Amino acid sequence: MAGGGDDELKLLSTWFSPFGSRVKLALHLKGLSYEYVEEDLTNKTRLLLESNSVHKKVPVLLHRGKALCESMVIVDYIDEAFAGAGPPLLPSDLYERAIARFWLVEPWFRMLDGTRTRAEMTEGVKQMLAAVASLEVALGQCSKGKPFFGGDSVGYVDVALGGLLVWVRASEALLGVKFLDGDRTPLLAAWAERFASLDVAKAALPDFGRVIKHAKMRRGAAAGALAGNN
Amino acid sequence: MAGGGDDELKLLSTWFSPFGSRVKLALHLKGLSYEYVEEDLTNKTRLLLESNSVHKKVPVLLHRGKALCESMVIVDYIDEAFAGAGPPLLPSDLYERAIARFWLVEPWFRMLDGTRTRAEMTEGVKQMLAAVASLEVALGQCSKGKPFFGGDSVGYVDVALGGLLVWVRASEALLGVKFLDGDRTPLLAAWAERFASLDVAKAALPDFGRVIKHAKMRRGAAAGALAGNN
Repeated sequence: MAGGGDDELKLLSTWFSPFGSRVKLALHLKGLSYEYVEEDLTNKTRLLLESNSVHKKVPVLLHRGKALCESMVIVDYIDEAFAGAGPPLLPSDLYERAIARFWLVEPWFRMLDGTRTRAEMTEGVKQMLAAVASLEVALGQCSKGKPFFGGDSVGYVDVALGGLLVWVRASEALLGVKFLDGDRTPLLAAWAERFASLDVAKAALPDFGRVIKHAKMRRGAAAGALAGNN
Repeated sequence: MAGGGDDELKLLSTWFSPFGSRVKLALHLKGLSYEYVEEDLTNKTRLLLESNSVHKKVPVLLHRGKALCESMVIVDYIDEAFAGAGPPLLPSDLYERAIARFWLVEPWFRMLDGTRTRAEMTEGVKQMLAAVASLEVALGQCSKGKPFFGGDSVGYVDVALGGLLVWVRASEALLGVKFLDGDRTPLLAAWAERFASLDVAKAALPDFGRVIKHAKMRRGAAAGALAGNN
């Protein structure tokens, strides 16, 4: 594998983290081997706490012992540091690059944290529907009729959104709302099918059934905490 | 001026926008000439509405007619597109670059929008104090004892924070809270003095007194709207 080696790259994450999935996607797309450390978020390793002393959050990528934090900052780094391995994730054209970065500023993952009240859920669904409507525009603008945000191959925005895909699907199932809808967001719905069928997605994304189970458990815990506060 | 020309670069902003100030700082640091279009946010130009059809917000930079949106995306673009003009804003070392980008993810400008209630103000002050404490760490990490986040010269994080500086000062004056404090945040307080004295800051940042007057007017309008809702 290009540029790899277990001592070179080490990823600290947890299996269900959509942000960790982004980093995994980037590593797999570049064909890089890495050591994976599964973190228990209720009992974080000293390595995680020391590597991300500001936020103490996953994912963290260690490259030759140097710690990188924040999923898309890590993806950026991987793209530049391993420019020779695999296809580039960010477009080489500077204007197209700015367009890709622009879409990343969009707040399209609000729904991913456990909502606790019905009002929060209604608001979350509303925001998510606005976000996917905006992403439908983004996909048209970035792909120019090609299969991915990155054009013919998977790029920066594909990685950013693809990492969240299983959680979007899980949210749809749990809330009974279709976010990626063939009528409202035809481009995005087709993109999601296409992305999910990629080998790299199968390798990097968590199992849907396991995420559903985990989300239900989190929701139960949140409801319990809320009841305890009453 | 390198790479400039009035037909080449056009900035749409409003004089008090801290995000517009970031773009101005980057343009001045690169020594680029540009046409400036002052936007009335209550009556936006068709050019602005068409150039940023997603958010309809300033700043927008037009480069040879192509529109760029979101302040730090624009700064990124300027740094790459005019790499030959002026000093680089992002570090050339990829790891240091990731560190600079990491600090940009921090939510350190929460206070800048008009808060309406006392509870919102108290929460805003709390968040701002946490943000500056975090930035004090950032400055230590990025500058390594040198005068700026960018080291010996002004860089990406300096531009990001510098653009907000007059608004931070205005918030201090209006709220009676010292955010950049010689005791709590000695590095940041010294940085702010140093940054404000630069010619580029004098050229790109709005006048403090005018910002204070504008902020008071906004606060009055917000209070009026709130009273009207009762």
